[in-house]
Amino acid sequence: MNNIPFKGVIAYPVTPFNNAEKVDIPLFKKQVERLVAAGCHGIAPLGSTGVLPYLTDEEKEAVTIATIEQVAHRVPTLVGVSNLTTQKTIHHAQFAEKAGATAVMIIPMSYWKLTDSEIIQHYDAVASKISIPIMVYNNPATSGVDMSPALLKQLLEIPNITMIKESTGDVQRMHFLRKTLGEAVAFYNGSNPLALAAFAAGANGWCTAAANLIPELNIALYDAVQNGDLHEARRLFYRQVNLLKFIVAKGLPRSIKAGLTLLGVEGGEFRSPLKPLSQDEIAELSHILDEVKGAVTA
Amino acid sequence: MNNIPFKGVIAYPVTPFNNAEKVDIPLFKKQVERLVAAGCHGIAPLGSTGVLPYLTDEEKEAVTIATIEQVAHRVPTLVGVSNLTTQKTIHHAQFAEKAGATAVMIIPMSYWKLTDSEIIQHYDAVASKISIPIMVYNNPATSGVDMSPALLKQLLEIPNITMIKESTGDVQRMHFLRKTLGEAVAFYNGSNPLALAAFAAGANGWCTAAANLIPELNIALYDAVQNGDLHEARRLFYRQVNLLKFIVAKGLPRSIKAGLTLLGVEGGEFRSPLKPLSQDEIAELSHILDEVKGAVTA
Amino acid sequence: MNNIPFKGVIAYPVTPFNNAEKVDIPLFKKQVERLVAAGCHGIAPLGSTGVLPYLTDEEKEAVTIATIEQVAHRVPTLVGVSNLTTQKTIHHAQFAEKAGATAVMIIPMSYWKLTDSEIIQHYDAVASKISIPIMVYNNPATSGVDMSPALLKQLLEIPNITMIKESTGDVQRMHFLRKTLGEAVAFYNGSNPLALAAFAAGANGWCTAAANLIPELNIALYDAVQNGDLHEARRLFYRQVNLLKFIVAKGLPRSIKAGLTLLGVEGGEFRSPLKPLSQDEIAELSHILDEVKGAVTA
Amino acid sequence: MNNIPFKGVIAYPVTPFNNAEKVDIPLFKKQVERLVAAGCHGIAPLGSTGVLPYLTDEEKEAVTIATIEQVAHRVPTLVGVSNLTTQKTIHHAQFAEKAGATAVMIIPMSYWKLTDSEIIQHYDAVASKISIPIMVYNNPATSGVDMSPALLKQLLEIPNITMIKESTGDVQRMHFLRKTLGEAVAFYNGSNPLALAAFAAGANGWCTAAANLIPELNIALYDAVQNGDLHEARRLFYRQVNLLKFIVAKGLPRSIKAGLTLLGVEGGEFRSPLKPLSQDEIAELSHILDEVKGAVTA
Repeated sequence: MNNIPFKGVIAYPVTPFNNAEKVDIPLFKKQVERLVAAGCHGIAPLGSTGVLPYLTDEEKEAVTIATIEQVAHRVPTLVGVSNLTTQKTIHHAQFAEKAGATAVMIIPMSYWKLTDSEIIQHYDAVASKISIPIMVYNNPATSGVDMSPALLKQLLEIPNITMIKESTGDVQRMHFLRKTLGEAVAFYNGSNPLALAAFAAGANGWCTAAANLIPELNIALYDAVQNGDLHEARRLFYRQVNLLKFIVAKGLPRSIKAGLTLLGVEGGEFRSPLKPLSQDEIAELSHILDEVKGAVTA
Repeated sequence: MNNIPFKGVIAYPVTPFNNAEKVDIPLFKKQVERLVAAGCHGIAPLGSTGVLPYLTDEEKEAVTIATIEQVAHRVPTLVGVSNLTTQKTIHHAQFAEKAGATAVMIIPMSYWKLTDSEIIQHYDAVASKISIPIMVYNNPATSGVDMSPALLKQLLEIPNITMIKESTGDVQRMHFLRKTLGEAVAFYNGSNPLALAAFAAGANGWCTAAANLIPELNIALYDAVQNGDLHEARRLFYRQVNLLKFIVAKGLPRSIKAGLTLLGVEGGEFRSPLKPLSQDEIAELSHILDEVKGAVTA
Repeated sequence: MNNIPFKGVIAYPVTPFNNAEKVDIPLFKKQVERLVAAGCHGIAPLGSTGVLPYLTDEEKEAVTIATIEQVAHRVPTLVGVSNLTTQKTIHHAQFAEKAGATAVMIIPMSYWKLTDSEIIQHYDAVASKISIPIMVYNNPATSGVDMSPALLKQLLEIPNITMIKESTGDVQRMHFLRKTLGEAVAFYNGSNPLALAAFAAGANGWCTAAANLIPELNIALYDAVQNGDLHEARRLFYRQVNLLKFIVAKGLPRSIKAGLTLLGVEGGEFRSPLKPLSQDEIAELSHILDEVKGAVTA
Repeated sequence: MNNIPFKGVIAYPVTPFNNAEKVDIPLFKKQVERLVAAGCHGIAPLGSTGVLPYLTDEEKEAVTIATIEQVAHRVPTLVGVSNLTTQKTIHHAQFAEKAGATAVMIIPMSYWKLTDSEIIQHYDAVASKISIPIMVYNNPATSGVDMSPALLKQLLEIPNITMIKESTGDVQRMHFLRKTLGEAVAFYNGSNPLALAAFAAGANGWCTAAANLIPELNIALYDAVQNGDLHEARRLFYRQVNLLKFIVAKGLPRSIKAGLTLLGVEGGEFRSPLKPLSQDEIAELSHILDEVKGAVTA
């Protein structure tokens, strides 16, 4: 299936800013390189972790180009192009395609809660203007709208909408998708603490920012699942679960940047109003990281 | 209190678009004129009703200028300047002040749920750059973050933050604010179906898009409350409550534009992905409007 | 309307236990007497405050008889007869009628969430076996089932179901009832912190345990509302709101018994697992009571 | 560990009533026999499925005795003894122990939301009066109180509290228990649609009413998990998931009795207000059962 280019661990790089709160493209490229070198199966810039909605159009374009240049076809790329208006979403989707992205990810951003009909028209309008595949992203916590399984099923009837990323944190959504749409449906888990449950349920991949900190554990979990080895998958999941919960609880950009610093990697500054974790939170993360990393070598 | 320039019915105009989905400034000015002429006590462009987040920076500036020109100091103006980033919020707040706005309204827009500390820094940064008063707007349904009464209390310590608009739909928040902060606190109701309960609780004003359709009933309710006449206030509230519920349930921009058309007033088109109400919904609104308007003359 | 025997402040006595956790009927009668003497407009034993579900059948019967004897027709009585099974509900409703109760209150207790059809059959079965009026009580927080306004409307078609008590804490339910069912519908507020909003919305009465502690303030609020005096109603509400919030937050039986002790009135012990408030909570209540009582004389 | 007597599929029999709504003990014994004969690993009478709270004390005792007689030590028995009052809970727990139950299950039934301290005292009081192990049951949807993982951890420090049944439907609770308490903690899944996720997370057993209808599939899923065979476990889970979702959505007693009838097994009548499924619901269940059963032989 050419239209389902992703599987395994799809890594979300952070967007680093400099002291003047400008995007630092050279540092961003280093982030991307780390993820590819670590063996991640896909790279997804301009996601929640990459603070997409806080960037200007020009910055989004620069990040898109930087990703595609740096990845250089080693793995597929999934570029976030979501926008409140249909017109801008089309603009960024077309830009990503032209720049060489493998696929685009689109969440139905909402200020006014969109009706099902508006959501369908929105995706349809974008899908008709590009020819690369689209991953539909459901995350009511950030988009303000919860797409029902029935609506997701309808969206999958649009030709180049071929993948679904679910981040509601409810593993039963995945059961429904798989049960209703058949084993061929490609669904991806975006809820880190559900990594084991989602893979058990048959998720094709795991969209995660955790790969910035513990790619080896993320990938090992996926491998155990592929081998059908439940005991090993469970063991690996419990090794990393505390970190997965922490980064979600504290916010991905804040947690990942703090984690990178703890690992001795430069992750850049924030754009206001987002701020770094507090010293107490950093100490807690440090403790969790030590535990998780220690566990690997043990 | 010079710093609390609003009371009564603060009207939210829609932003009209033309067939090419561009903002129609001349038509917008007509909307503003209708609201002022109807006796509304304040005009609030670039709110939720005015689809602020769907507009470009240039469009926001044009709408700001158009409002201030058209209102021409007849009533105070409250310009929405909320933005995801602190820098852009400052930019728009400064623009509004320079253009002559009486005050600005700021909701802590969030993609990543902001911490209390980030929210305080955000407001503080903006407040320090302007000298006109700020109305803090709490509406978790659109902002993604629910500011606790304790946090709101802290924000009121920033000098030019002098007003709070509450749209959680929980009248007990208003009780808390009034009880904790004393009778001097200026709070405004942004939840239309709570109009009576909020005025009973002592709200200074009612921020409403309903004034586009039934300004005479909105104002009459405020007047009854000012006179301390509970029976008349109750009677007036029940005359309009069905309309208030409808416009909230269906989304303000969609409902108000449909209502304007039913009243023979041009309200302009939408910007995608937002679409007009369905024919069935318009028929329902027509029935409600007839009932409400009939009640007035009865 | 003979079938709507309640208005004003309907007081809920606590059920006192002795040291052996047995119901103390003589002490219970003193509670009832205090409430009648204070001018409450109705007495409602065996409610949530009276820990109905923690009592045996025999205890419920003894409390019913004690109430009716003590009240001696001075004000109407509203006896709680709710039970998980239809058969037992009928039993207690018939007992209350025979004992001389003015009306009974019934909440659809649920372990298994009841369907609308089951709820209707339940009320219908009970209503057909008694001839005194029934107050339907909606309180999803304790019953586990939230009766929609549409279902409540249906229940009101059963002849002797003539009153509705709403405790969802959502004043909009009351708007709907009044708007849909007309001014004749008798609805009662069971959510203490909503006392002002509910009266503003036209509630016939206020079902409250607060009358054990501050009956004079509860009654004064009702009187102000009857006089249509919104400013006085608001003033009286803000005088008592902190107490209203406290007793709800901490649980009515615990809070009321602690308050009685603070007022020098014997309220009896608890039945396990319910326990008294902690010392810190009692200190907080003491402070609130002082403030509220002080306010009265000020 | 002698104190953890359960693993695998713990089956919940329904309580059958006759036409006069009396408990039918001989028919109940047939239900128990079917479950034991089918290979279930434990029998749990007087649970939610067995409509515990709708029964009189005498009926509860008769059902307890009938279960223990019929099971005759072939598998362990887990008797539900939950009650609103501590005294009655002790009474039933002692009765169950004397009658020969292997263990008892206790949910903190709440009318008044219990504080953590009240919950601890409640369990402690019961635990000190019996010597068989206790399974603590967390199910906020029916008990009205959600025990936090921290509280559950505290309860496990009481000597004969050795097992936890989680029915919140949130698999992350199980992750927390296992991660915090170590691999030795015995936790059981009570949320049917989470069967796969819970077993993947390391649950010791599955408390389920589904075993009345598809014991072979429930047991096969457990076996696949024991073998660490994720692919087979996933296949088996998807075969039964539609049935698991249906029985939860429609209520276990109603669904299981309808399913028994469809399978040609007598399940008895209901006690009001509970009523049978509608004809449409029964048709839907029939379709699901055909599909699931067909899948087994295919």
